[in-house]
Amino acid sequence: MKFLFENHSFATRECGQFVDVTDDLRDLVERSEVSNGMALVYSPHTTCAILINERESGFIDDFGTLMESLVPLDGPYGHDDLEARTENLEDPHEIPNGHAHCRHALIGSASQTIPIRDGELMLGRWQHVFFLELDRARDRRVLMQVMGE
Amino acid sequence: MKFLFENHSFATRECGQFVDVTDDLRDLVERSEVSNGMALVYSPHTTCAILINERESGFIDDFGTLMESLVPLDGPYGHDDLEARTENLEDPHEIPNGHAHCRHALIGSASQTIPIRDGELMLGRWQHVFFLELDRARDRRVLMQVMGE
Amino acid sequence: MKFLFENHSFATRECGQFVDVTDDLRDLVERSEVSNGMALVYSPHTTCAILINERESGFIDDFGTLMESLVPLDGPYGHDDLEARTENLEDPHEIPNGHAHCRHALIGSASQTIPIRDGELMLGRWQHVFFLELDRARDRRVLMQVMGE
Repeated sequence: MKFLFENHSFATRECGQFVDVTDDLRDLVERSEVSNGMALVYSPHTTCAILINERESGFIDDFGTLMESLVPLDGPYGHDDLEARTENLEDPHEIPNGHAHCRHALIGSASQTIPIRDGELMLGRWQHVFFLELDRARDRRVLMQVMGE
Repeated sequence: MKFLFENHSFATRECGQFVDVTDDLRDLVERSEVSNGMALVYSPHTTCAILINERESGFIDDFGTLMESLVPLDGPYGHDDLEARTENLEDPHEIPNGHAHCRHALIGSASQTIPIRDGELMLGRWQHVFFLELDRARDRRVLMQVMGE
Repeated sequence: MKFLFENHSFATRECGQFVDVTDDLRDLVERSEVSNGMALVYSPHTTCAILINERESGFIDDFGTLMESLVPLDGPYGHDDLEARTENLEDPHEIPNGHAHCRHALIGSASQTIPIRDGELMLGRWQHVFFLELDRARDRRVLMQVMGE
């Protein structure tokens, strides 16, 4: 079995940004020399998702509009009521982000897993792998792991 | 390590169709002779999801109603505004499907992963694995991969 | 390759409960002695999800409010119309749970997969792994599997 793991650090610019990590993932699969196996793309954050979809700006804007209609930025959210909250209060300058926690849970995906066959990452023609920022501009990481033979 | 991979091709009939792939997956697990490992079911499309749920027509209709209420078929969607769009315009006959891209991203799952233990796919009593068509009737593929020992 | 599998049984108390399984998962990873691999947390039920998010009561309440606004408990749902339904009618005392099937499909995640690197489960600082009850108080199981070398 071969294992190749990487941690990519970057800064996001804004809520709703789709960061395309497809090329980095393909590159990792190639360097892994794995013929048969799988690739796992993982977000270690509680307010970001990993999604697979088409890379097209119209869709990305549509999805931002949908998120705002279903889970509005301005709430109200109990998570942001620092007067009432009793847990995880280490940061006195915490910026409200209850919308981002709820959007992440609604989308439901902290990772995506893609099969590797004959050395090829089996993404479909239009599929790109995205790290989706659901909070504000922040320093972020995405973890990529290739496993197989 | 054993790896068994299959690509199943089929045609869907309509938006909202749940295609049950459970029997095909159980058959693949049996043929793989894997005792301990996992099964990955993957959609290479940007407008389909893989879901695990009960096979019951009332639920399937309910979910179609829910999708239409949260992400209506008739939008409007920037993805479908071909006058304004600047990317991925190869197909002059593209049929609007902005709803399907947004529904797929909202559901969030391009795949499902199920453990295999003592040669058994560990689906619960009521669980079936479905390929969910979120666009219209189209030619589709589902990828299945079994890995383990 | 090493494989370690566990089945944890427990009873949930109510709809919307987040059962934190993080400590059990970390313990399993430690006992597995896997250095590089992954951990799969799987729900064998059709009305529960596995989610990764922050452990904070305000967020958990917010998400319950969101679920009720998007997918109301009292429907109506075809799944719960036992006069009209024709499938899966084995239980004459079935309690209506169409909301829970739809909420589970909307969230989309029957499992979560987390990379293991140098023996460490790569959860981010604020990430906890939850079994989410979307139906009522019930007897439940969560399956955990660690694979790797």
